[in-house]
Amino acid sequence: VAAFSATAVGSIPPILPGDDLARVIVAAAGPERLRSGPVIAIAHTAVSKAEGALVELSQVSPGERALELAEAQGRDARLLQVILDEASEVLRSERGVLITRTTHGFVCANSGVDASNSTDRDTVVLLPRRPDESARRIRAGIARLVGGERAPAVLITDSFGRAWRHGQVDVAIGLAGMGALDDWRGRTDANGMPLLATWIAVADAAAAAADLARSKDSGEPVVLLDGLERFQSAQDGPGAAELLRAIEEDLFR
Amino acid sequence: VAAFSATAVGSIPPILPGDDLARVIVAAAGPERLRSGPVIAIAHTAVSKAEGALVELSQVSPGERALELAEAQGRDARLLQVILDEASEVLRSERGVLITRTTHGFVCANSGVDASNSTDRDTVVLLPRRPDESARRIRAGIARLVGGERAPAVLITDSFGRAWRHGQVDVAIGLAGMGALDDWRGRTDANGMPLLATWIAVADAAAAAADLARSKDSGEPVVLLDGLERFQSAQDGPGAAELLRAIEEDLFR
Repeated sequence: VAAFSATAVGSIPPILPGDDLARVIVAAAGPERLRSGPVIAIAHTAVSKAEGALVELSQVSPGERALELAEAQGRDARLLQVILDEASEVLRSERGVLITRTTHGFVCANSGVDASNSTDRDTVVLLPRRPDESARRIRAGIARLVGGERAPAVLITDSFGRAWRHGQVDVAIGLAGMGALDDWRGRTDANGMPLLATWIAVADAAAAAADLARSKDSGEPVVLLDGLERFQSAQDGPGAAELLRAIEEDLFR
Repeated sequence: VAAFSATAVGSIPPILPGDDLARVIVAAAGPERLRSGPVIAIAHTAVSKAEGALVELSQVSPGERALELAEAQGRDARLLQVILDEASEVLRSERGVLITRTTHGFVCANSGVDASNSTDRDTVVLLPRRPDESARRIRAGIARLVGGERAPAVLITDSFGRAWRHGQVDVAIGLAGMGALDDWRGRTDANGMPLLATWIAVADAAAAAADLARSKDSGEPVVLLDGLERFQSAQDGPGAAELLRAIEEDLFR
């Protein structure tokens, strides 16, 4: 019988640019708790703020396209300029939202630019510039501080909408020390029957699960996940980039 | 500090048409364990088998369209006929997979028809005919058998692919006793800033989390989820149907 659990880490202070997130997490969770090597799920806004991936709207001069979109959508043209700057491609523009492919390759609403969860109304939060690198750096920082038999894994998350379903679920945007996909293709089920298309996005499932352990207004960006040892590795691994479909495999082009 | 956990229920016997799934689950998990009112996540194949939502391929006569698709995709024309019978619309046909909208309104690969996880190579497993009704019936059956302060919730799951990301994650296809969506739109975050687009598909997150508590070859269709009380209700509620975007809201038409 397998078991899995997710526990929010309380008392994470507000994160400011330049903060050492590894140190903040170790202080809040305690080194003993981290020495057992859980997966540490971190809401991306904490990572972005620590890295200074922020834009002050008062400093943005919207261009022609942003002004047109702002007119059509009844939104702030400066915010739309930031969203366009973060996009490699605009897939859809309707119902007050832009669906874009970000410069990282993520397909999501508004290039992942977050106008809420900020500390003032002028500042918007971007996605981390290189989230897999952020995960690796935070992982190394935590491992250095806590020691232990096995370095914890680090999973950076964001909430994404879905094409045909209401609501958002958290997904993995950065990852170190855990495989993003669990590949059962070619293996057999309990009856010896082939598992035809079983390729599980375990990092996305872990991100979704982490979000169930916190309340959205609680200021709890960090959640510890236990019971995922079978997907964890000593190596950092290829990260969450592995989850992205190549553009030519996109079913909707 | 919030916490969430998922524990697979061992020793569920192979399910056969006509089995009383409520009775099977109570016998395997024990009535005491269920009396606390967890969310009971059940892989849809167990529900479909109990309800006899199965097709024997040897009894299927493929029509013209199924024969054409079988030729193009190098697949069994009888299986393609079953997939077409379960579909209200074929969205894409490529790379050996049909993406369809099922008669229930789910968008998924191959209309959710499962050629693995069956007990023999001739039988394929369909989605339950009315998964929200199945969830309500199983919930009522379990509540009758165990009593307790609060009836457990029932969540029926399947593994779906995603438009722009590799791999599958489990989602909710049937639900009773739990809200599918947690709506924070219009509320504020820890800093008093508005949460602009925070509408969380908690039933899908719970489905994804449940899958992390089992191994795909373990024959463990049932997983108990604790810590979701804030989303549970005495009423059955509107079910997983609430998660489906209306066709006219589909961003990809």
